[in-house]
Amino acid sequence: MSEEKVIPYKIYLEESEMPRQWYNMRADMKNKPAPLLNKDTLKPITFEELQPVFCDELIKQELDETTPYFDIPQEILDFYKMYRPAPLVRAYCLEKALDTPAKIYYKFEGNNTSGSHKLNSAIAQAYYAKEQGLKGVTTETGAGQWGTALSMASSYLGLDCNVYMVKCSYEQKPFRREVMRTYGASVTPSPSTTTEVGKRILEAHPGTTGSLGCAISEAIEAAGNKEGYRYVLGSVLNQVMLHQSIIGLEAKAAMDKYGIDPDIIIGCAGGGSNLGGLIAPFMREKLLGNKDYRFIAVEPASCPTLTRGKYAYDYCDTGMVCPLSKMYTLGSGFIPSSSHAGGLRYHGMNSTLSQLYADGYMEAMSVEQTSVFEAAQRFARVEGILPAPESSHAIKVAIDEALKCKETGEEKTILFGLTGTGYFDMYAYQRYNDGEMGDYVPSDEEINAGLAGLPKVD
Amino acid sequence: MSEEKVIPYKIYLEESEMPRQWYNMRADMKNKPAPLLNKDTLKPITFEELQPVFCDELIKQELDETTPYFDIPQEILDFYKMYRPAPLVRAYCLEKALDTPAKIYYKFEGNNTSGSHKLNSAIAQAYYAKEQGLKGVTTETGAGQWGTALSMASSYLGLDCNVYMVKCSYEQKPFRREVMRTYGASVTPSPSTTTEVGKRILEAHPGTTGSLGCAISEAIEAAGNKEGYRYVLGSVLNQVMLHQSIIGLEAKAAMDKYGIDPDIIIGCAGGGSNLGGLIAPFMREKLLGNKDYRFIAVEPASCPTLTRGKYAYDYCDTGMVCPLSKMYTLGSGFIPSSSHAGGLRYHGMNSTLSQLYADGYMEAMSVEQTSVFEAAQRFARVEGILPAPESSHAIKVAIDEALKCKETGEEKTILFGLTGTGYFDMYAYQRYNDGEMGDYVPSDEEINAGLAGLPKVD
Repeated sequence: MSEEKVIPYKIYLEESEMPRQWYNMRADMKNKPAPLLNKDTLKPITFEELQPVFCDELIKQELDETTPYFDIPQEILDFYKMYRPAPLVRAYCLEKALDTPAKIYYKFEGNNTSGSHKLNSAIAQAYYAKEQGLKGVTTETGAGQWGTALSMASSYLGLDCNVYMVKCSYEQKPFRREVMRTYGASVTPSPSTTTEVGKRILEAHPGTTGSLGCAISEAIEAAGNKEGYRYVLGSVLNQVMLHQSIIGLEAKAAMDKYGIDPDIIIGCAGGGSNLGGLIAPFMREKLLGNKDYRFIAVEPASCPTLTRGKYAYDYCDTGMVCPLSKMYTLGSGFIPSSSHAGGLRYHGMNSTLSQLYADGYMEAMSVEQTSVFEAAQRFARVEGILPAPESSHAIKVAIDEALKCKETGEEKTILFGLTGTGYFDMYAYQRYNDGEMGDYVPSDEEINAGLAGLPKVD
Repeated sequence: MSEEKVIPYKIYLEESEMPRQWYNMRADMKNKPAPLLNKDTLKPITFEELQPVFCDELIKQELDETTPYFDIPQEILDFYKMYRPAPLVRAYCLEKALDTPAKIYYKFEGNNTSGSHKLNSAIAQAYYAKEQGLKGVTTETGAGQWGTALSMASSYLGLDCNVYMVKCSYEQKPFRREVMRTYGASVTPSPSTTTEVGKRILEAHPGTTGSLGCAISEAIEAAGNKEGYRYVLGSVLNQVMLHQSIIGLEAKAAMDKYGIDPDIIIGCAGGGSNLGGLIAPFMREKLLGNKDYRFIAVEPASCPTLTRGKYAYDYCDTGMVCPLSKMYTLGSGFIPSSSHAGGLRYHGMNSTLSQLYADGYMEAMSVEQTSVFEAAQRFARVEGILPAPESSHAIKVAIDEALKCKETGEEKTILFGLTGTGYFDMYAYQRYNDGEMGDYVPSDEEINAGLAGLPKVD
């Protein structure tokens, strides 16, 4: 014991110790994720076919299954320095409150105005758009973190930024919208009448409060309608997970510095970008057979993609304008109950994580939202940080695992991703504080109805 | 140049380098601030007279004019480690955007859930209350940062916390209220019918939206009505400024580590706790004659305490239940225009800072709010952080000073305090974004009307 280094509450890497490359898990996977398919030909999609939608450099990253490391351009590194390195925090106070022998760490990505890890990919995508000489980008946002992150990155680089915000979120979170406007972005509630697909969806479902899948369709159409614009996306894609590997790379570097090795790594899972980013360098060790880790993806019981979805080709968006991706999915028509608070409401899962899950490299759990907010409050009161509802899914399972250690007496080391803060989620907290928050678990019929809409692909 | 150390974007002290003592400026002042007076006898107030209101240890700190350094108790140091050291940031991106030869630094205190520096004193005051065996604390909050900070500290230590929140803020910022509730605090809009003074104020001014002075009176009365409760205050008092010296001590330690010495130090000024805390160790050098610094207090033109107030004894609260303090004041009945957004709306100024200002150790400037929000937006777009309206007063003047350097070619080093984030101030940003924000400068008649209410003390 006396030889162990004293672990500070927060481990910050020096600027000189910050990772200078992103890591691409696919390069070390034996079973590669299935390729994106052209939705019309059902053949693997080509660079050229993606060019009207995405920036060239991002397409290269999206399609690259063999290059393990990508250099991070200097301008992105400089931007990262404004809010990174993010701290790796030893949750001493939570450990004490739980009276557990477990050692709990979290990588905190909320110390920036977007309030989450989303900024890591936003600046990368905005940078490549700028490099390509584009005028602007379009995107969707659900809970609002991604739209905020992209508006920050765009404003920094002088790009125009048009955000389609899921209508229920637009209405519940007017202040998120104002943050985006402060950074110069335009924000449109989705579905809207500014796109054909939006009009179509509004006709079919007049009172709809929108979904991420709808907003994606609208943002893609909007990018196509304007000269010099491309679409960018905050999760799901492999390029996003590549950028988010900075989370895990920093966490691992900080842990290595102090001789810490986690047993369990836990992340919340919506589209998968945070989870994939957090686990990336640890998964590398597991893929190479150097070390075993237990990885746990935590998803909401109201949108149980991994735990109740099907591993199949599906549309990435409701309007069915995207390529097809093979992934765990609930069907592109699946919309989580309106009682569901916060993000993690996407119907599918990143294709790389889906393959890893199918191959048994990772576990998944689903949790109900009142238990998530209970964990959030418990965490906030001892660790000080008011967590985002999304991040609190990981907190919930980290607490559960730490309490198991209390029963067994095991001194496991747990690492979880604290993706962001809940400062713009107080409406949901209010419902919880007032005892008005309920849980919703879709019935088998609802799940099957979603899956019935999957496209036929062998 | 080659011998200069490369200055990183953010300087974080190691945990082992964090200050372990607070610094009390009064110990090094030749002209001590005038003592608090008993409002009935007009004699300097005694320890015993303050005991029904404040915790014993805090009274000692309040009255101590000779002890330069106070040890920070270990439990407070441990709490500090959850969110401190706060980074000293080199504003490279702002410098580039302004194209100035000035070197701009800011000490960023917003990386915690209270969103501001207020937590530094909240944990100290809650700790001493707990040590004294008390059950709970009462307080007031205006913009909401202090109430949030105190609810966090109280929840951490298991103390009950009752917050009187200025009514207009309670209504404009329901989400601030929810953060406090999430940390277990009770929140009452002020003036309220739960206290005699609240009822009296409501009778006299039926439609009032409240003021900090009213809320203070109510919180003091509420503390007196309950066994085992004391009142705590987030600014104005010398004890608060003592705790806030952690800001300046950390900033100076970080600057010393890299051989940086500021020429100008700028802070926003409401009650004075942030400003006093930031300048404390630098002022020590000036008081001891070791080094000259230019200190600038920045206040809103709508509440111009230093620039248009009078240096005189006054009540600290609207209900006139507090001791009298000699300070720059606009009169305890002064209430800033309802068009004024954010905090910095207190009618007076900390007595130590008032004395330093009277003695010429410090300058003061007042700025109008649209120019403040313009600076805030400019800062946010290049430095990433969305600043609190309060902090943005300092940003405004820091930018002005940096632009002066651009004209003269001087490479001055500017340090300002970025006290917090504006995540709960989006209603004000919305007004700014929509072009609906106005400026308000009180007329001489209004200022004189406030001053006419000063008590008669020789």
